[in-house]
Amino acid sequence: MESVISFINSNRERYVEELKDFLRIPSISTNPENKADVARCAQYVSDQMNKSGLQNIQIIPTQGHPVVYGEWLGAPGKPTILYYGHYDVQPVDPLNLWSSGPFEPTIKDGYIYARGSSDDKGQVFLNLKSVEAHMKINGKLPVNIKFMIEGEEEIGSVNLENFITSHKELLKADVVLVSDTSFFDDEMPSIAYGLRGLCYMQIDLTGPNRDLHSGVYGGAVANPINELANIISKLKDKNGKITIPGFYDKVRPLTKAERDAYKKLPFAKKAYFKDLGIKETFGEKGYSILEQVSGRPCLDCNGIWGGFQGEGAKTVLPSKASAKISMRLVPNQTPHQTAKLFERYVKKLCPKTMQIKVTELHGGYPAITDITTKEIIAASNALHKVFKKKPLFAREGGSIPVIASFERLLGLKSVLMGFGLDTDAIHSPNERFKLDNFHRGILSVALFYDELAKMS
Amino acid sequence: MESVISFINSNRERYVEELKDFLRIPSISTNPENKADVARCAQYVSDQMNKSGLQNIQIIPTQGHPVVYGEWLGAPGKPTILYYGHYDVQPVDPLNLWSSGPFEPTIKDGYIYARGSSDDKGQVFLNLKSVEAHMKINGKLPVNIKFMIEGEEEIGSVNLENFITSHKELLKADVVLVSDTSFFDDEMPSIAYGLRGLCYMQIDLTGPNRDLHSGVYGGAVANPINELANIISKLKDKNGKITIPGFYDKVRPLTKAERDAYKKLPFAKKAYFKDLGIKETFGEKGYSILEQVSGRPCLDCNGIWGGFQGEGAKTVLPSKASAKISMRLVPNQTPHQTAKLFERYVKKLCPKTMQIKVTELHGGYPAITDITTKEIIAASNALHKVFKKKPLFAREGGSIPVIASFERLLGLKSVLMGFGLDTDAIHSPNERFKLDNFHRGILSVALFYDELAKMS
Repeated sequence: MESVISFINSNRERYVEELKDFLRIPSISTNPENKADVARCAQYVSDQMNKSGLQNIQIIPTQGHPVVYGEWLGAPGKPTILYYGHYDVQPVDPLNLWSSGPFEPTIKDGYIYARGSSDDKGQVFLNLKSVEAHMKINGKLPVNIKFMIEGEEEIGSVNLENFITSHKELLKADVVLVSDTSFFDDEMPSIAYGLRGLCYMQIDLTGPNRDLHSGVYGGAVANPINELANIISKLKDKNGKITIPGFYDKVRPLTKAERDAYKKLPFAKKAYFKDLGIKETFGEKGYSILEQVSGRPCLDCNGIWGGFQGEGAKTVLPSKASAKISMRLVPNQTPHQTAKLFERYVKKLCPKTMQIKVTELHGGYPAITDITTKEIIAASNALHKVFKKKPLFAREGGSIPVIASFERLLGLKSVLMGFGLDTDAIHSPNERFKLDNFHRGILSVALFYDELAKMS
Repeated sequence: MESVISFINSNRERYVEELKDFLRIPSISTNPENKADVARCAQYVSDQMNKSGLQNIQIIPTQGHPVVYGEWLGAPGKPTILYYGHYDVQPVDPLNLWSSGPFEPTIKDGYIYARGSSDDKGQVFLNLKSVEAHMKINGKLPVNIKFMIEGEEEIGSVNLENFITSHKELLKADVVLVSDTSFFDDEMPSIAYGLRGLCYMQIDLTGPNRDLHSGVYGGAVANPINELANIISKLKDKNGKITIPGFYDKVRPLTKAERDAYKKLPFAKKAYFKDLGIKETFGEKGYSILEQVSGRPCLDCNGIWGGFQGEGAKTVLPSKASAKISMRLVPNQTPHQTAKLFERYVKKLCPKTMQIKVTELHGGYPAITDITTKEIIAASNALHKVFKKKPLFAREGGSIPVIASFERLLGLKSVLMGFGLDTDAIHSPNERFKLDNFHRGILSVALFYDELAKMS
């Protein structure tokens, strides 16, 4: 391992330059106009797999964007890791808030800024570089590995369950490894053991059949924006409880042990407030902030639009108004059932003056994993050695729906060893990835292979 | 008058062609990028004044878009009419809902379709053609007339009060004439005797200082869209009453006589619902639809925006959300005082998790006029002769704030003789103007001059 480590340490500059090439590709999976970029990005991943020494590399088509697969299976008797990541990225709007171009990677104060730098290209890339280091120095890996990098994570991995189901043999492994999560705080390596699920909906309200003059019709014709606001205002009560009937029925309450563990996690409230520029939080009464953002479900409007949005004043009574509303789920809620409860309630709230359309845009299951397996212990040991700190085990508020799919479809548990930071601004303008975490990430994964091999 | 009438009837084709040129100019006053178009439109109005035989024509600059002035004062001892209109138009979005280009005037089924066709270019133009007809046939008018056509009506006539105040001598007259209102229904000529005022506000809410990942922060960080919806939902109660404290304090209740007059107005509820594609209305309980849209104040969201509005799903917890909200006012409410009540209430509703900015975008006073003056009787007689029906007197729901300004600053009452229809879709896609009303409008105004001269 000494020479692997020294190889990694002496290749830092090259790694960053290659990562930049990866980040320059605008692989926004939700935009039809970026389809060719997403395809180009899949090719880039495939080339990098080849460069790292993986074999049997394939760009496998799906109904949407392709999955890139590569493997190295030359360690008989040793465990097989299925590494999962994604090469697609979120949209970049609002573009005007970016300090540098979202696809012009820029280094500043020890961070690399670009869309996808932390979520998830930087993290996929560091895993490939761990493989590369072992292969370059030893010509082999201490474990078997399969890489499966998809292009639709940011649009809900819509074709991934089908893909997994139809490639069960190819994906056969002992454990899943994912680097798509964050450190608990800046200097504290962490292993995530729980993830929230997601149920993402859209409401479209239509009132009159055309935009009207608000002077001529205002006062008698119901306004879809006002009615949409009324509906949204009835989704949560003043205690932050979601009011959708049945919403909490399947929620597994946090146990006393879990709540005690939450209390032990470091949390600097003042710094949290300062970082976000807020004076107060608003969440479900009776739970701490950390519990609210990872151990309990929540509901947020992700977007709203209707009527006139330009400068100045237009006296329109609009025909339509829409909102995107998502709910984060915890075990044992399920996305589709939640969508049904949401739809039923929202339709009940909708007045007779409006026509309503409720659409389930996408969803993912919540997940929770056992933290006593040898794979988790190997990951913990690797992080401990690199970061000189015993990693924290924490639940994450975000969703990686595929984790639940791996368990359900392949019977595989996951190790969530991510190197992001909560301040990485993923999904926001000025997304970044800490370069020190990028480099230490390469070392950590390289060591993880070694630790896991030793324990097997 | 016979030869004036026959001149008008024989020039119909030319009138429409000239009107098309006027409508082709995208004089959207609220868009900075259309500034040159607005200036070009002022020049077009000035040219048309010249063609009609008006004198002392001037394009008078203001702090914003210019006012175009022209006069003919060759009838000593006869009344002087101050005609007011506007050459600016509303924005055109949503553009995709237009069947033909908003600035490519298109004739179909007896209507001319274009932005500004009814509001107010078509109506300004027909008044100029009435002057032209008298001048061409008789070389003179039976009354004195001053035309004052502004370019900022659609942005609240922001510089007009200053203009009136600094041009009191130039604008000296006996009565104001305005053609910017609608017939009560399709075949029923109408004179509007009341107009609602306007108070147009914008709310901007800021929560966290940047867009956040809704998985990482959702559940603890307050969401500006949800909070904006909460605020909007508290502006009206379930009986359609506006809940802003003090809002109704200055509202002059409808008298029994007024309510009886409302009851006598023709109103085809079924056709109204069908035209709008609605099943039910929603307004202030205890008032008829006609009372709700013209005799009582109301509150409408004219626009709302925040977060992700694109295709698909973006899991953002946005930093900002905004709404445009306007209130229509009735006598004796005042815009600025209403804005203060609105601001005070909305700020009180705003939770501590949010920063709020409340902006008064524009406002206008409501107005009500006496229907027994000789000018109103002359207008009524003219309409009766042309349309073969005694016109209705009705209050309008829209706002022409300048009407109140003329009264306050110049001591002048107005005659609101408009030729639009409520189905003209003003401020909406596919705005149109009925060509028959355009041509009969020219006749009506020409006869109005004559009737008024005879009574003076």
